[in-house]
Amino acid sequence: MVSDYRCFFCFTKSYENLLHRLEIPVDTKNTITCEMAKLYTQQFEEFHAPTYSRALREMLYTHIGKQDMYIQQKKDSNALALSLYNTYKQQVLHSDTPFDTAVRLAVAGNIVDFGISHSFDLELTIQHVLQTPFALDCVKELYDDIAKAQTVLYLGDNSGEIVFDKILIETMMHNTVFFAVRGAPVLNDVTIDDAMLVGMDTVSDVISNGYDAPSTVLEYASDEFKEIFNKADVIISKGQGNLEGLYSLEQKNIYFLLMVKCDVVAELLGVKKGDFVVTKHN
Amino acid sequence: MVSDYRCFFCFTKSYENLLHRLEIPVDTKNTITCEMAKLYTQQFEEFHAPTYSRALREMLYTHIGKQDMYIQQKKDSNALALSLYNTYKQQVLHSDTPFDTAVRLAVAGNIVDFGISHSFDLELTIQHVLQTPFALDCVKELYDDIAKAQTVLYLGDNSGEIVFDKILIETMMHNTVFFAVRGAPVLNDVTIDDAMLVGMDTVSDVISNGYDAPSTVLEYASDEFKEIFNKADVIISKGQGNLEGLYSLEQKNIYFLLMVKCDVVAELLGVKKGDFVVTKHN
Repeated sequence: MVSDYRCFFCFTKSYENLLHRLEIPVDTKNTITCEMAKLYTQQFEEFHAPTYSRALREMLYTHIGKQDMYIQQKKDSNALALSLYNTYKQQVLHSDTPFDTAVRLAVAGNIVDFGISHSFDLELTIQHVLQTPFALDCVKELYDDIAKAQTVLYLGDNSGEIVFDKILIETMMHNTVFFAVRGAPVLNDVTIDDAMLVGMDTVSDVISNGYDAPSTVLEYASDEFKEIFNKADVIISKGQGNLEGLYSLEQKNIYFLLMVKCDVVAELLGVKKGDFVVTKHN
Repeated sequence: MVSDYRCFFCFTKSYENLLHRLEIPVDTKNTITCEMAKLYTQQFEEFHAPTYSRALREMLYTHIGKQDMYIQQKKDSNALALSLYNTYKQQVLHSDTPFDTAVRLAVAGNIVDFGISHSFDLELTIQHVLQTPFALDCVKELYDDIAKAQTVLYLGDNSGEIVFDKILIETMMHNTVFFAVRGAPVLNDVTIDDAMLVGMDTVSDVISNGYDAPSTVLEYASDEFKEIFNKADVIISKGQGNLEGLYSLEQKNIYFLLMVKCDVVAELLGVKKGDFVVTKHN
């Protein structure tokens, strides 16, 4: 499994924060915590972070009702990223290597789920990524493959981040790009609403993957999504969530663009936490 | 229950750190983490942090063998505290209110499980406690009750910390003091070895509570310990662990001396995390 015990501890930290914020009785918080532990033991043999994440959310909804808990966070991050669009679009247009610059911006955008309300963090990250060598660098191959591809499928990750994905898609200047979003709200992951808000539909065909894990899990994806996935010549997978769902496929046409946010993924890729990566299976 | 869901998250953080340090295969770490979650679900209805802590350790031993994992940490904290003994003993001797000063030092000693290797932290904490009003202050009642008591039972908490407990016991100048240690090594809690190392046997009768939870759990204590517990006129319970085991008894002769280290205990006592407390049931 890509996921290991460290992922469970990552979830416990995240749920501790979530429960701290929720205004519900302590008995309900106790029950949710117990069910969180129980779900882990039940899924342990095939523990897979995106699947566990989805199961946790379903369990949580039975106690607090179904709701989009990150709706404000998503709005804020979209607004923040949109406010930076013109600046960075100009930077790409004036770059000597526009594709490379746009890829770097897209990878930098992957910071968004960390520092939503700190525009300084985002801009600082962008400056850092623009000046830092990728730990794994397949940018040239990605460029060449896109040039040859009939169909490109771009798997979105987080709200806000998609503004930089849009700049990269514009920079590709490719006729047939599909941009995939989650099938329903999950964490701060990109949904149809976010894609429309940033005008992603003006540069690509926006599609849903038909499932509400914070990842791309082909087994549960819609038939429409699977058909596009299978026919795509190049797949661009943004972020750790999509990587966790797809890395085991070992397909050579999937490029993983991400900021490495934990040791589990760092070890899988043979890089360090914090590294910036554009890679694929060879 | 005194313990609630937050205690579980406290354990997960502690075990994440522990597993990070242990040089064992990742599969074993996965299994330990799963069993940790499973034990929580099994004990959930009567969740009690000291009992869970003990069960976790037993489970851990089945994977890594029985061992005193904190032996070096205990040696270091004893050595650190002993190096400060003369300074603070003199301070008590020259104090206008020696008992109050000694109680404050004993409460300050309760920081030890946080900052083992940082003598600066310990000394800074001592200065802080010496100048800060107790959030709950039963020092005067404690003094009076000790003066009237035939037998005093002092429940030790952590290694290192016991050097300050020793100063308090010396300052009591009482003929019949029993100092209780854990029945076996558990975390950095005080054992017979620690008590002997700091010379606790020269100022009190050192006894074991006969059980290896990081607390005092009467249900599982030895008959000898229970006999002394029941006949003691004053019981001094150091630290959160002992409080978690004893607070539900609502006995009026138990004084709880501690630094409040988490929100769960803070809420129970109606104080704030970080507060210094000398209290008892009224």
